[in-house]
Parts: sequence; C-alpha cells; structure tokens
Amino acid sequence: MIIINTGKGKGKTTASIGQIIRFLGHGFKVCLIQLFKEDKFYGEQKILVKLDNLDFFSFVKKHPYCVKNINLEDIVNECVVVMRKLKELASKPKKYDLIVLEEFNIALRDRFILEDEFINIVKQLSQKSNIIVSGRGAPNALIKIADLVTEMKEIKHPYKVGTKATKGIEF
Amino acid sequence: MIIINTGKGKGKTTASIGQIIRFLGHGFKVCLIQLFKEDKFYGEQKILVKLDNLDFFSFVKKHPYCVKNINLEDIVNECVVVMRKLKELASKPKKYDLIVLEEFNIALRDRFILEDEFINIVKQLSQKSNIIVSGRGAPNALIKIADLVTEMKEIKHPYKVGTKATKGIEF
Repeated sequence: MIIINTGKGKGKTTASIGQIIRFLGHGFKVCLIQLFKEDKFYGEQKILVKLDNLDFFSFVKKHPYCVKNINLEDIVNECVVVMRKLKELASKPKKYDLIVLEEFNIALRDRFILEDEFINIVKQLSQKSNIIVSGRGAPNALIKIADLVTEMKEIKHPYKVGTKATKGIEF
Repeated sequence: MIIINTGKGKGKTTASIGQIIRFLGHGFKVCLIQLFKEDKFYGEQKILVKLDNLDFFSFVKKHPYCVKNINLEDIVNECVVVMRKLKELASKPKKYDLIVLEEFNIALRDRFILEDEFINIVKQLSQKSNIIVSGRGAPNALIKIADLVTEMKEIKHPYKVGTKATKGIEF
C-alpha cells in the first residue's frame, strides 16, 4: 500500500511516526529515511533510535530554506545516494513491512530527486512493502499511484498569531 | 496549548501518537487517555505501555457503533469516571507536559460527555499542560478555544475500493 501524508497543516511527520509505532507494536520491521532533519533536534529521534526492528537513516540534514550557504550540488549528490539505497531495497528480497520516506515531497518539489525516477522506485518498493511518503505538496503523479492520501489541512495555527516553534510541539 | 486533530481522513490517532513520542524524546511527561479502543488490539498500545514518563489509561473499550448490545448507561457512567479524573488533574499541581484525549470528540458527539463541562475542564487543564483532543467532528465551541487545529482530510482511501482494515495500517 502506498500512503501519502501531505498538506500545509500540522501532523504529517507525527502521523508517520505514529504509524511506525503501530507497525513496530505488531512486531513488523520498519525503515525510516528522513530528509532535511537535523540530528538530535526532534524529540522523536531520541525514542526511535532505541526501538527494535526499526532502521533509521537521515540524509541531507539541512534544507536551503532554513540554512543559507548550502551547496545545492551537495544535496543533489546526497539524494543520489538515497535513491541508490531505495533501488537496492527494491532489487533485494523483502526486508521491511513499512518504509517511511519523510519529506520526500519537498525533495521532489525542489528537484533534488526526479519525479519519474522516484515514482518508479516507489511502485517497485510497494510490491513488497507498505510505503509512506510525507511532505507538503505531494505531486499529482504520486497521488495517482497512491492508495491512501490524507491532506493535513490547517484550520488554525499559532504561527499565524506569532507564536514561535515550541519544543515538543513542532520539534 | 490546545491542539485538535479532527476530520474524516486517516492520521488523527497516529499524529497524536507521534506527538507523544516527540514529547517523550525531550524527557517530558505525558498522559494518554484513550476512549473506545479495545485493549491489546492496536499495535501502538504494545509499544506505548513500555515507555517511561507516559501514563496510559483506557476507558469505554467498545463503542456501540462497533459492538451491539452495549448498555449506554454503562458508557455514561464510565465517562463520569473519566471526567472526575480530568478534574482531579486540573485541581492538583502540574503533573504532565502533554495530556492526550483520544476520541473525545466522538464522546462529545454522542453526548456521553457534555460539551460545556468538557470545554471548561480543557480550558483549566491547558493552563498547566498542552492538550490534544482527537476524533472526527470536533465541535465548534472546542475549535474556538483551540490554538492549533488540523483537519485530516481524506483525499483517497482504500476503504472506498473495498479494502478491509489492515494490521499496521488501521490498527
């Protein structure tokens, strides 16, 4: 099954984390690949690294939107490594019941990963594993091949009244 | 901060679980109260009970929508116990950084818990703790007092093409 968590509202990453916990509770094996997330910053990272049956990878730790003076070529090169990893997973016997691709929609939007190549690999991976792709602005071609798509829609958000990101809530 | 996860789409409970994991990762203390959830059925329950700093309670294990021949009076009585618990939490010094009230929107919709009473207690609790209320159909009066509201909007769902609930995905 291919699942997409998208939209501008809160809850995309936390829903992915919750889904991972649900899978792990049944004794399933899970792979989480995060993009654009600083190490040891998000609370969930500290719990996830301790859990059995979860392989947790993190690539492209910084996004140019948040940190200036990043060499875009370095990001593209790191995404090549990520895609190689996904292709390797697709070519070998099933290793995971769930593969979570966090913020990959952002990498697609910014063309760090090519849409056609990504969609092909997700299709292949989904023959063996459940796949979650998260991040705002999921491309239509990805939505088309997905089985379950949720838009996290912002009804009310404290950023709008000037509140800053809070420990525990946003990270 | 008062947070609401509502809407008909998938991701309300998993987003709450993810938020709990995020809080716990920072060493915060969390209380989860679930309504209408069978014990030892949902994968996440098996992981959550093992985590430090989380107090996990479950009331009204069955909802009349799913299980027939339930005495509605028993449900109302159990909800009285739940509300007493919340009032006790509100009257004592801060114990939790986050209190998660899972599926309470359903209890409000079905009048097992009275809206005015619930909103008053949530307001009081939010003076000390962050509060998450989840479940489809959050009442307007609750949305009004909330800081952050996300509607999980169903864009595509496999139930629509006849797929049944899947282990790991829905439970």
